[in-house]
Amino acid sequence: MTGVSGKESVSLDLLRQKMRDFAKERGWEPYHTPRNLLLALVGEMGELSEIFQWKGEVERGLPNWKEEEKVHLGEELSDVLLYLIQLSDSCDIDLGQVALRKLQLNAVKYPVNK
Amino acid sequence: MTGVSGKESVSLDLLRQKMRDFAKERGWEPYHTPRNLLLALVGEMGELSEIFQWKGEVERGLPNWKEEEKVHLGEELSDVLLYLIQLSDSCDIDLGQVALRKLQLNAVKYPVNK
Amino acid sequence: MTGVSGKESVSLDLLRQKMRDFAKERGWEPYHTPRNLLLALVGEMGELSEIFQWKGEVERGLPNWKEEEKVHLGEELSDVLLYLIQLSDSCDIDLGQVALRKLQLNAVKYPVNK
Amino acid sequence: MTGVSGKESVSLDLLRQKMRDFAKERGWEPYHTPRNLLLALVGEMGELSEIFQWKGEVERGLPNWKEEEKVHLGEELSDVLLYLIQLSDSCDIDLGQVALRKLQLNAVKYPVNK
Repeated sequence: MTGVSGKESVSLDLLRQKMRDFAKERGWEPYHTPRNLLLALVGEMGELSEIFQWKGEVERGLPNWKEEEKVHLGEELSDVLLYLIQLSDSCDIDLGQVALRKLQLNAVKYPVNK
Repeated sequence: MTGVSGKESVSLDLLRQKMRDFAKERGWEPYHTPRNLLLALVGEMGELSEIFQWKGEVERGLPNWKEEEKVHLGEELSDVLLYLIQLSDSCDIDLGQVALRKLQLNAVKYPVNK
Repeated sequence: MTGVSGKESVSLDLLRQKMRDFAKERGWEPYHTPRNLLLALVGEMGELSEIFQWKGEVERGLPNWKEEEKVHLGEELSDVLLYLIQLSDSCDIDLGQVALRKLQLNAVKYPVNK
Repeated sequence: MTGVSGKESVSLDLLRQKMRDFAKERGWEPYHTPRNLLLALVGEMGELSEIFQWKGEVERGLPNWKEEEKVHLGEELSDVLLYLIQLSDSCDIDLGQVALRKLQLNAVKYPVNK
């Protein structure tokens, strides 16, 4: 699974399993109903937006951001992802599979102009 | 990569590459600035919320939902994921790696009670 | 209540009453629980964001927008407001009064530098 | 403007003027571009959602909530309202007037069944 870069390829299945274990070990499963997780996700979207709120337009790659700002941003992006995975799981939806399917639908909906 | 189930393990890297190719083929890259993608993500979060808005509390696994509602839900969950991946990419942040790191931070922040 | 401009001064109490009447006449009250209305509000926030999503930075006053875009924007801003008023009402919170109080708190939190 | 209850009827115009003065006194006007305010609004929507996120379904009127929770909720509802008013103002849109118009459109769109 690891290559020359030493980085693990991170699959949605891996993250889902880690989130399941995490919730189980802490007894949090009863709280993880679909609408609870959806509202938690909206909460994290808000925290993500706050990072960008007073900045005006932002350049791709964030060349002018401080390292600590980028670290913070990475944490908020992660929180959105992790709740999204948990929400999908609570709805018995395989996020990776539906995302692949959606990409195919998008390719049909927006054909490449030649 | 495929097992007995015939399902591909979907990695964040794979989806990121597919989104990059998709945007490039359509000439959409100039629009994919961080704040544009963030607002698109908020837009998709809204569409996701609309699916749940008049339903009252919803059971785990969605036992009473129609198949077409679940398909629609899968599409909206996918849209959120795909814009989240693009937003991360536009910020030069490796979403899979920061998510793994966030899981480690969460494990420290919320220790398992023994 | 009307002045030379012919414009009615619109109070939050007026809008709340109109929304109450509207829901009652249509038998929608059973659906107007706090979390249902909250998710509807998030849905409208998404529609509002979509108007701005591919535009890059936008000038104050929207000098370059078409009239129909501004009309559409006004409708989405209204939808957010109307659900916010209904959500407050469903929680038995007087939105106008708490907003006045919040302004006072903000003035203390962010004193004017002299 | 005040009745037996001693409560001021709070108009959207009043709150808009107070927000204008507030921003002007603090020199915050340069930051109050439409997209900055929109993202701030999304941030506040997130904080509002967090109040409801682990609660399961919530009864109208919040009969089981502590006083301090209701005070906190009032503050977050206010923050959403105040940024919504500022966003509208930055777009040169009269929120009260467009909301009245939207109510008329809604009445046409959703006629009362007789």
